[in-house]
Amino acid sequence: MNIGMKKTLAMSFDDALTKVPEALKSEGFGVLTEIDVQKTLAQKLQVSFRKYRILGACNPTLAHRALSTEIDAGVMLPCNVILYERDDGRTVVNIVDPLQTLARESAPLEAIAKEARELLERALQQLG
Amino acid sequence: MNIGMKKTLAMSFDDALTKVPEALKSEGFGVLTEIDVQKTLAQKLQVSFRKYRILGACNPTLAHRALSTEIDAGVMLPCNVILYERDDGRTVVNIVDPLQTLARESAPLEAIAKEARELLERALQQLG
Repeated sequence: MNIGMKKTLAMSFDDALTKVPEALKSEGFGVLTEIDVQKTLAQKLQVSFRKYRILGACNPTLAHRALSTEIDAGVMLPCNVILYERDDGRTVVNIVDPLQTLARESAPLEAIAKEARELLERALQQLG
Repeated sequence: MNIGMKKTLAMSFDDALTKVPEALKSEGFGVLTEIDVQKTLAQKLQVSFRKYRILGACNPTLAHRALSTEIDAGVMLPCNVILYERDDGRTVVNIVDPLQTLARESAPLEAIAKEARELLERALQQLG
């Protein structure tokens, strides 16, 4: 399994919920959506699940370029960033690799996807 | 370019904003997130853009199976459904193909992705 760009952080889930959006913001990505997976699964299926969030991160300039290049690019936007709690109390962050999504079906989007990937990698590097 | 499963609907954007979530719901997908792309680009970049939404659709049972199979599957969830207005006033709907996202990096997710794809195709078929 090789989805996304993944790192285990030496911080609690709640701390990561603050730190990850800050790191994304410093690279030009705002968080537009947030899904509380644990809460959603509890409400819809009455099952318990670990702490888990899916954030939808968007760099408006890159998104605008992607959509202006290929109007259907929105199927692969925003860039997902997931956070979940490990059994040992540390937190995993995994950021979508735009080369695995945005660029895969459309060669003209490759340059934009590379640029997005570099910014997201820098955000990930900030996170210790 | 071959992103997603795409159809042009003989209805206005506003009608599609009602009809598409109804069709998704009938196949077990709730809309968990919604991004108003036109509004976001206007606010962040002061540019004008056509009417465009990105809906995040989730079938809780399939999502739970995916996450229980592969904890990092959330990078490829929820299933995006985009809607945008064409110049002729009709509306395009384009639904992510989970075989292009969820299943591509993880063979164990293929059966779940196929099931999700079939349900999403049925939702699309309902939309005239």
